Amino acid sequence: MPPRFYIALLHYPVYDRRGRVVTTAVTNLDIHDISRSSRTYGAGRFYIVTPIERQQELVRRILSHWQEGPGALYNPSRREAFGLADVKGSLDEVLDDISGRTGQRARVVVTGAGFSSGLTGFEELRSRMDAEGAPCLLVFGTGSGLAEEVTGRADFVLEPLRGAGSYNHLSVRSAVAVVLDRLCRE
Amino acid sequence: MPPRFYIALLHYPVYDRRGRVVTTAVTNLDIHDISRSSRTYGAGRFYIVTPIERQQELVRRILSHWQEGPGALYNPSRREAFGLADVKGSLDEVLDDISGRTGQRARVVVTGAGFSSGLTGFEELRSRMDAEGAPCLLVFGTGSGLAEEVTGRADFVLEPLRGAGSYNHLSVRSAVAVVLDRLCRE
Repeated sequence: MPPRFYIALLHYPVYDRRGRVVTTAVTNLDIHDISRSSRTYGAGRFYIVTPIERQQELVRRILSHWQEGPGALYNPSRREAFGLADVKGSLDEVLDDISGRTGQRARVVVTGAGFSSGLTGFEELRSRMDAEGAPCLLVFGTGSGLAEEVTGRADFVLEPLRGAGSYNHLSVRSAVAVVLDRLCRE
Repeated sequence: MPPRFYIALLHYPVYDRRGRVVTTAVTNLDIHDISRSSRTYGAGRFYIVTPIERQQELVRRILSHWQEGPGALYNPSRREAFGLADVKGSLDEVLDDISGRTGQRARVVVTGAGFSSGLTGFEELRSRMDAEGAPCLLVFGTGSGLAEEVTGRADFVLEPLRGAGSYNHLSVRSAVAVVLDRLCRE
């Protein structure tokens, strides 16, 4: 069975704490944690998205260390996880890459803690994915979340994660893991 | 309702990749991510456990930055999460602290990717916790997992997280989030 879902971590366009659209810096541990979660839950690919070329180079250097450099020998399970990771300059490049791999345009699913209307639940998203048969791209934001330019393009807005109360400030690393766990469990 | 569960992240005694018992170094992002997950899912307290005094001092400095230093002003939601975090020298100190707070000895629940026998499922743990009414301490290991000295003291061995296949190398940050999500959801 081909992978049903793909992950993108966007560093642009996202909001900062004051609601301005910014580009955030790449975080090394995001790449590690989300690669490992992607591999554990069977994602097709994990895209780190930044338009800044020097940041793209940095990501490529990190990926190559674990994909074929000293890290690959030191830690084969990390190598396996990093095999899913790739860097792209924009959401469109990601969608093109998935089209190239699958022959289908992926459904865009945006995630975030602040959404309150037009939400799709986990159960529903799962049945829609099963019914449509198209790949689905789960888009996660850094900073204070995805900018409207991205959320406006969504096919689905995933319902925010909720815990025990009104506080829901999970790290993006934790959020990706929980979303994948909810989507992939029987 | 008083908190039903507490989190401990152990830096000793844990195994390294070759199965030797070691003390691992504290990781800054573990403290951030697990504090945020603990707060989101309603944990009573999050204990960072290391016997090394210089590491304890480092943790206290990080906690104080976000609890009452510049970080508390800069990011109030982080302050709220860090309010749950504390540093202890051993599992016994953690259990004593919980006893002091609740008047009850916590049940020790060990977690890990490698357990295969005597497991307790998430559903079962939840009903047991409800039935017994005692607080429960979820113990997570760093490095390559909790040493036998700790797992041998467990009241419950939590079933390992599984994803889409046999690969299950989540980061401890991701694992804590997923375990809490599974335990706390309706």
